[in-house]
Amino acid sequence: MHVLVIGAAGMVGRKLLDRIAAEEGILGGGIDTLTLVDVIEPAAPRTLAGISTTKAADLSDPGVAEKLIASRPDLIFHLAAIVSGEAEADFEKGYKVNLDGTRFLFEAIRLESAKAPYRPRVVFASSIAVFGTPFPDKIGDEFFTTPLTSYGTQKAISELLLSDYSRRGFFDGIGIRLPTICIRPGKPNKAASGFFSNILREPLAGQEAILPVDENVRHWFASPRSAVGFFVHAATLDLEKVGPRRNLSMPGLSALVGEEIAALKRVAGEKAVRLIRREPDATIQKIVAGWATDFDTRRAAALGFKAETVFDDIIKAHIEDELGGTL
Amino acid sequence: MHVLVIGAAGMVGRKLLDRIAAEEGILGGGIDTLTLVDVIEPAAPRTLAGISTTKAADLSDPGVAEKLIASRPDLIFHLAAIVSGEAEADFEKGYKVNLDGTRFLFEAIRLESAKAPYRPRVVFASSIAVFGTPFPDKIGDEFFTTPLTSYGTQKAISELLLSDYSRRGFFDGIGIRLPTICIRPGKPNKAASGFFSNILREPLAGQEAILPVDENVRHWFASPRSAVGFFVHAATLDLEKVGPRRNLSMPGLSALVGEEIAALKRVAGEKAVRLIRREPDATIQKIVAGWATDFDTRRAAALGFKAETVFDDIIKAHIEDELGGTL
Repeated sequence: MHVLVIGAAGMVGRKLLDRIAAEEGILGGGIDTLTLVDVIEPAAPRTLAGISTTKAADLSDPGVAEKLIASRPDLIFHLAAIVSGEAEADFEKGYKVNLDGTRFLFEAIRLESAKAPYRPRVVFASSIAVFGTPFPDKIGDEFFTTPLTSYGTQKAISELLLSDYSRRGFFDGIGIRLPTICIRPGKPNKAASGFFSNILREPLAGQEAILPVDENVRHWFASPRSAVGFFVHAATLDLEKVGPRRNLSMPGLSALVGEEIAALKRVAGEKAVRLIRREPDATIQKIVAGWATDFDTRRAAALGFKAETVFDDIIKAHIEDELGGTL
Repeated sequence: MHVLVIGAAGMVGRKLLDRIAAEEGILGGGIDTLTLVDVIEPAAPRTLAGISTTKAADLSDPGVAEKLIASRPDLIFHLAAIVSGEAEADFEKGYKVNLDGTRFLFEAIRLESAKAPYRPRVVFASSIAVFGTPFPDKIGDEFFTTPLTSYGTQKAISELLLSDYSRRGFFDGIGIRLPTICIRPGKPNKAASGFFSNILREPLAGQEAILPVDENVRHWFASPRSAVGFFVHAATLDLEKVGPRRNLSMPGLSALVGEEIAALKRVAGEKAVRLIRREPDATIQKIVAGWATDFDTRRAAALGFKAETVFDDIIKAHIEDELGGTL
């Protein structure tokens, strides 16, 4: 099997590759070729270096998609995107990368399939940003997509294209709407959602973290481990069972910031909690107030997608996967 | 005011122009320039010929949108599209005309607005084909768009673009999802939906018509007169009241084929009804079974959009507008 990962240098991409390297056959068969692409050259997992090709390329540049698809990968993970803030700040770049890049990929597959039978699996990273306020407390599987960002618009359009190209038989696609990933590894960043991870990750490492919102703010979470699990499951799932509605809100855990902190206390004790410094930020509070807080994800659950159900497990996954298993 | 009508040679375009010609000030101000575009050169209404420019041009050809927008029309009706059957039969043409053409128009406006302040009203003809089965008996204003045709996909994508470009302030857009237009004037055609009009129009003219489905088939209707009314209302409506959700399912009348026939009998007598020949067609029955039958359109109604509420009025509108007022 030839596997192509576009966006392989990103956090989810790297974790997905680690998982593929760690568990042989996890994608439903032996892998003989792995092609890894990102705008900066991605690293191949050490144990798969012999079968890997790494490339620095931008999917939204003309000709890139055709070259990637000419070798007919069987399974394609499309994780490449510029993030919400950048897509809002740079309108043209957002549409170029997040919409045109995706459409170029889909078109390259369609044109390749017209030459000789070819119907790869395409697993696409979408986002709950396809939804915009006002929405119900729990967003159901049939709620309409009314994005309030250009990023969300680009993801919603990509979802529609993915469904139509799948319906026409050009490829077999599935779109995965990720919850907010928590605990995001790495350094604190300036993303408005960063604090949800920062207030756990930093104290677990003995560092101070800033909480800009109230403890009664509710949000929608899954661990990086669960996110990788979604993509792996989507790669092997029988898509006949999914039917024509190919885009799914993934399971997650709806939790208050206060519940995050209570879990931190249970797992790492009061000394960790004392490292959280409250510093209210009206700008961040306003942004966060527009975000979805809970989802009814029964379609995804019925199809076997799984996420954490208690916050302690999200913290424990971080300790196991990032901190060597102990504090 | 400079008004641009793209798709001016189509049925709705022509009726809209007749209405504009008939009622001065109906678009909220005097019109000093009227630009009419279609892939075949459209005709200007006789009384507006002096202020009209007519052009044969394809919006999806490079450069066409820029040229149309360079003169900065204040109000743009975008009615141009290839129909569902053609978009399904010719994948590339459907995406070119129905998606790229629309995006070229929106981009041309954005780029023009970057040169000097410019924010036209854009009224876009969308379709209930953005919905796909299974759906509820009555499709509500928050039901998700899951098209089962490429045409419906192209319309749903155009709706998302329209909302995002409006949100960013490049133009002030509104998308109008039309019910099935009935009674469609002209000759019987091969469209699967044609019989809904044929079984009324032909008997009203003393001609035989074929009914390929049962009388208990339910469908969603508005007269051509109502359709024009939607566009006129959308041209002058305060879009602040609409908010960021710029695409609206229009009001219509949910009726059984049997109710169409009963109305025909009331308006034109038993002799007209006797001209309907029942000739069941399994293919048409199957296509029609996948179509929406009823909508909850309270948002559009609250915003002042109006359609017929009894079928007799749909037939009477046809007699007045197409048959000179009498049978």
